Amino acid sequence: MKIRIIITGGTFDKHYDEIRGNLTFKDTHLPEILKFVRCTVPIELELNQLIDSLDMQTANRMQVLESCRRAPEDRIVITHGTDTMTETAEVLGKAGLAKRIVMTGAMVPYIFNNSDAVFNLGCALIAVQLVPVGVHITMNGRLFAWDDVQKNRELGVFEAKRA
Amino acid sequence: MKIRIIITGGTFDKHYDEIRGNLTFKDTHLPEILKFVRCTVPIELELNQLIDSLDMQTANRMQVLESCRRAPEDRIVITHGTDTMTETAEVLGKAGLAKRIVMTGAMVPYIFNNSDAVFNLGCALIAVQLVPVGVHITMNGRLFAWDDVQKNRELGVFEAKRA
Amino acid sequence: MKIRIIITGGTFDKHYDEIRGNLTFKDTHLPEILKFVRCTVPIELELNQLIDSLDMQTANRMQVLESCRRAPEDRIVITHGTDTMTETAEVLGKAGLAKRIVMTGAMVPYIFNNSDAVFNLGCALIAVQLVPVGVHITMNGRLFAWDDVQKNRELGVFEAKRA
Amino acid sequence: MKIRIIITGGTFDKHYDEIRGNLTFKDTHLPEILKFVRCTVPIELELNQLIDSLDMQTANRMQVLESCRRAPEDRIVITHGTDTMTETAEVLGKAGLAKRIVMTGAMVPYIFNNSDAVFNLGCALIAVQLVPVGVHITMNGRLFAWDDVQKNRELGVFEAKRA
Repeated sequence: MKIRIIITGGTFDKHYDEIRGNLTFKDTHLPEILKFVRCTVPIELELNQLIDSLDMQTANRMQVLESCRRAPEDRIVITHGTDTMTETAEVLGKAGLAKRIVMTGAMVPYIFNNSDAVFNLGCALIAVQLVPVGVHITMNGRLFAWDDVQKNRELGVFEAKRA
Repeated sequence: MKIRIIITGGTFDKHYDEIRGNLTFKDTHLPEILKFVRCTVPIELELNQLIDSLDMQTANRMQVLESCRRAPEDRIVITHGTDTMTETAEVLGKAGLAKRIVMTGAMVPYIFNNSDAVFNLGCALIAVQLVPVGVHITMNGRLFAWDDVQKNRELGVFEAKRA
Repeated sequence: MKIRIIITGGTFDKHYDEIRGNLTFKDTHLPEILKFVRCTVPIELELNQLIDSLDMQTANRMQVLESCRRAPEDRIVITHGTDTMTETAEVLGKAGLAKRIVMTGAMVPYIFNNSDAVFNLGCALIAVQLVPVGVHITMNGRLFAWDDVQKNRELGVFEAKRA
Repeated sequence: MKIRIIITGGTFDKHYDEIRGNLTFKDTHLPEILKFVRCTVPIELELNQLIDSLDMQTANRMQVLESCRRAPEDRIVITHGTDTMTETAEVLGKAGLAKRIVMTGAMVPYIFNNSDAVFNLGCALIAVQLVPVGVHITMNGRLFAWDDVQKNRELGVFEAKRA
């Protein structure tokens, strides 16, 4: 059972530019992470885009949807910025693909000591092996359906819409 | 949906004793980990024992089983040394409790830069929310039933018995 | 021989704000660092300011100078942003205090896995015990006099003016 | 001014063997460390041996002395296990080479999150540029002469013999 990981950037893959002193993108850290977590699940990595999700336009989300559609794999993990993750999830959810899709991201970039990125990736990789067909989000150790999740921007956590 | 995490020690929670220069146990790192991974799932932590799983005797495994039995929660994650994880899984599996139990551990202690502990914990916390009643093991990004898993000691990975 | 560490902020002490997704200041990491590096030199920590050195005005540099002047200690380490470290060094150098002052900073914040902050702090703490009276900068494993150092902004390294 | 770093192993360079679950040696981490700390001092790395200093025999210490003698560089840093660092320092000190030698090590291996290795390396690299001819040890942010230093094994710190 091969899993495709579609990489779109987001806080997860932010890189620190020491010359400019800011957070930006350079490359994905997924190959490095998958190695040290000792993952033996067959993975197909796809670098779809490296973008802050606040900068995502409709075309960007269509590019993610198109990748999901084209993927030969039935099970897909998507790394995505948290700010508009639910918007892309909605685009994917409404498309109604017969695939198991789990989106995740990070509140703290992987390159920080105390990042949630590796934990979230673990959640997503197992979730995608167990969920039914449909689009899901995993953050904060929880799993949400695409149409019942929102980011609480004050607390920096994801929560169900229906309390 | 509250999840109980039963801590038994293992490589996951190994501590470096800088005076003696060896790996030993001092305390669990679970509270610290659950905080920085930003977990919002209600968790009940239970420090069952802190032991190298090579030192586990029947009484130690019974102590784990008894904790599972007594737990008011239906969903239980167990951190455990990898060397005899499948043996404890067998004890739990044969007991046939009507609970969802997911065991995990680490090949590299949490305190190392390149540990698999946090990833494995993510896998276990999501798995326990999705699996049917029974005893499971998650390692290497994969999920196994208790009666179809073995540790490949040469490669340091878990694999299904039935190739 | 007590050493005063005057903290002014800079990249060294940058903090990641996971709600806003940017690098900012919250508190200094010096107490935590001094503990795990097992420093036994008596240290007096002074939180002078927490500021990006690009935002430093004359008043900010005067505040650092005034702290150096008032300090009962003869040996002073200053953590400072790299962008205008040489400017503050010039202010301190021209003041001609009869003290041993060593400035340092970081190109990558301490909170990143691959930060140079801890290394630079080691350099500064030893240097201040060995240098003659005057103002010095240590970065990149090298020691510079305040009037013969510049930051090479393309390479992100400090170098002597007189090649 | 080129600096030679003579590597002998010790806790500094300990590696975690995830198959056997113990700390051992595999290779030195110095090239990786020197890169991320952004060191621009010309360095000549010499892998002299990779050994726990408790296992060091006379021949091992002679091998270090011989490397110091043969080195074209005047300034030498030696990474060494802490348990018998003072013994090797005595061998080197009594040899009376006309070189500046600074020994250091680590109480916690570099591969741990909270290691003192990188800090100690910073201390040693700056110290060797400033000390007079002779053999020195830097640990805990302090600098000691080879004939006035001992390891306090209860506290895990280095201290002067003459309190």
